[in-house]
Amino acid sequence: MIPSKGYAAQGPETNLAPWNFERRDVGPHDVLIEIAYCGVCHTDVHLTRNEWFPGIFPMVPGHEITGRIKAVGNHVKNFKPGDLAAVGVMVDSCLDCEDCHNHQEHFCQVSPVLTYNNLDHDGKPAYGGYSNLIVVPEHFALHVSEKLDLAAVAPLLCAGITTYSPLKRWKVGKGDKLAVVGLGGLGHMAVKFGVAFGAEVTVLSTSPNKEEAAKKLGAHHFVVTKDEAQMEAAKRSFNFVIDTVAADHDINPYLATLKTNGVYINVGMPLKPFEIPSFTLATGNKVVAGSGAGGIQETQEMLDFCAENNIVSDIELIDIKTISTAFDRMLKGDVLYRFVIDMATL
Amino acid sequence: MIPSKGYAAQGPETNLAPWNFERRDVGPHDVLIEIAYCGVCHTDVHLTRNEWFPGIFPMVPGHEITGRIKAVGNHVKNFKPGDLAAVGVMVDSCLDCEDCHNHQEHFCQVSPVLTYNNLDHDGKPAYGGYSNLIVVPEHFALHVSEKLDLAAVAPLLCAGITTYSPLKRWKVGKGDKLAVVGLGGLGHMAVKFGVAFGAEVTVLSTSPNKEEAAKKLGAHHFVVTKDEAQMEAAKRSFNFVIDTVAADHDINPYLATLKTNGVYINVGMPLKPFEIPSFTLATGNKVVAGSGAGGIQETQEMLDFCAENNIVSDIELIDIKTISTAFDRMLKGDVLYRFVIDMATL
Repeated sequence: MIPSKGYAAQGPETNLAPWNFERRDVGPHDVLIEIAYCGVCHTDVHLTRNEWFPGIFPMVPGHEITGRIKAVGNHVKNFKPGDLAAVGVMVDSCLDCEDCHNHQEHFCQVSPVLTYNNLDHDGKPAYGGYSNLIVVPEHFALHVSEKLDLAAVAPLLCAGITTYSPLKRWKVGKGDKLAVVGLGGLGHMAVKFGVAFGAEVTVLSTSPNKEEAAKKLGAHHFVVTKDEAQMEAAKRSFNFVIDTVAADHDINPYLATLKTNGVYINVGMPLKPFEIPSFTLATGNKVVAGSGAGGIQETQEMLDFCAENNIVSDIELIDIKTISTAFDRMLKGDVLYRFVIDMATL
Repeated sequence: MIPSKGYAAQGPETNLAPWNFERRDVGPHDVLIEIAYCGVCHTDVHLTRNEWFPGIFPMVPGHEITGRIKAVGNHVKNFKPGDLAAVGVMVDSCLDCEDCHNHQEHFCQVSPVLTYNNLDHDGKPAYGGYSNLIVVPEHFALHVSEKLDLAAVAPLLCAGITTYSPLKRWKVGKGDKLAVVGLGGLGHMAVKFGVAFGAEVTVLSTSPNKEEAAKKLGAHHFVVTKDEAQMEAAKRSFNFVIDTVAADHDINPYLATLKTNGVYINVGMPLKPFEIPSFTLATGNKVVAGSGAGGIQETQEMLDFCAENNIVSDIELIDIKTISTAFDRMLKGDVLYRFVIDMATL
């Protein structure tokens, strides 16, 4: 076993605090990564606080991980010590079901293992990236270009792939008008990818004071959603809407902004179910689509695309000792756009 | 003006009864059709009874119309007297907006005119197909093959295009597993098109006694939705679900039958909004799509496809004097699968 240290929640009512634990030994197909950075995702707050469902405690959160390979197993082919590497939202799956064969390991129904708050194949809890080391099968490790800022790459592993994947699936590109709802961790990546794919991007936000920031990210237009006249003018104007807002909200005003055959993509995943009249969908052949992260092959494709196009997340690097403050600030939307933990501060 | 006769509801509380009225004179771009048959659609009941919204009375319903051209205007190019012709759910639009240019006249936002319960461009009510004559611009008249049974073609104009259009849009075909929910007017056409497109078709129905009928239409499998074990076994098994049920129901059990990247298409349009948890959509990248009828070009394509593949609706031909009984029987699902009025009985 490999002695490791990290920050863990001992229960849903406690703040994160230092915790020593053990990682499994490096198996023949495993890589050991020394973690340099880990992004702070809304999911980390939800899960450590049992906001979605009861968790496995102690819980070490974190699924936006970058670092360097420290050791590799005997059968590892694609990594060697010293290589940059990244880990996202999952660390194992059966690799043999229909979804795994179709490069959708994140939807494996047989034995998926999320990066934390899940039992690994050995029956022990998986611990996430708020820690100094992690051991994963090489299949679930990603290559990262030396060209990019490693800290700013971390959020690509969740916020990045979660927005990249649906925009690619729906072939959003040149000639398309894309609306991005919400300008947080996911939203700002959706703007960057939308612009990189050649779409005409409009940010829809409740906050008029985000217009400058949206334009700085490359957005072409800005709509204040609380302004009825602006929302009226936006009706039937977009081919695609990607909604990144995690708070409960009515999605029907956004469906009204879609052109005929338009697609609304939800990645914010609010808790309250959507309520959608059938007539709203039938009029204009509208589509409501969900999307969850992305498979390993597509995550690598996304990282390679980012290296080619010099895309990373806008981040605020933090000391892990300030993680509770970061959680509070993130919930208030007080971050541009993602906190990333500098693991040197652990 | 052209003296015409038909069956009309004088108000939302009255049964349909004989009524004499006038059609406009044949304009330079119009065709006059002598109606031979008109299909009876659920919409006819909803609208004549104000079940969706207040209607325009007297109301002559009917938007599944077939007949023969009796006269044409001076500038009509594609029809001549004696030709077979059909009219569907719309009889005019602006022909100049983005939707009209994209062959989606049914979503025209400028001046769409539905076949009945709508004001025509002259400001007068449009009257539907439960009548002996109809005048429409030639753009909104469809060609019908002499090879097909003209009575059985009528339901293609609504039930046919409403199921054909989304199955084409989503490229349902060989290698796909398609579930059809509900086996009424729309459902039986969805089965026929699904089979014709090469998909493996499963009918999902509450009634175990519909299995034989489903197989007779070409369905490969049958699932009784009230049987929990059968629904459990159907989980994650379809690429597409087309739901034709008009009664309010929970669509989540059908979403659970979708494979990763699967698409649920609603054409039944129940009144109560769908309630869909965001996690249901995110897990497996699921899609909920609406679809409303089809444009003129696609409706012609559908009619041509039906002629080539010998596809028509299964119908029960009725005397117009029995229309009230037909409405009642249709609401009970007591028809295989569409009533069609023989206008010779008018």
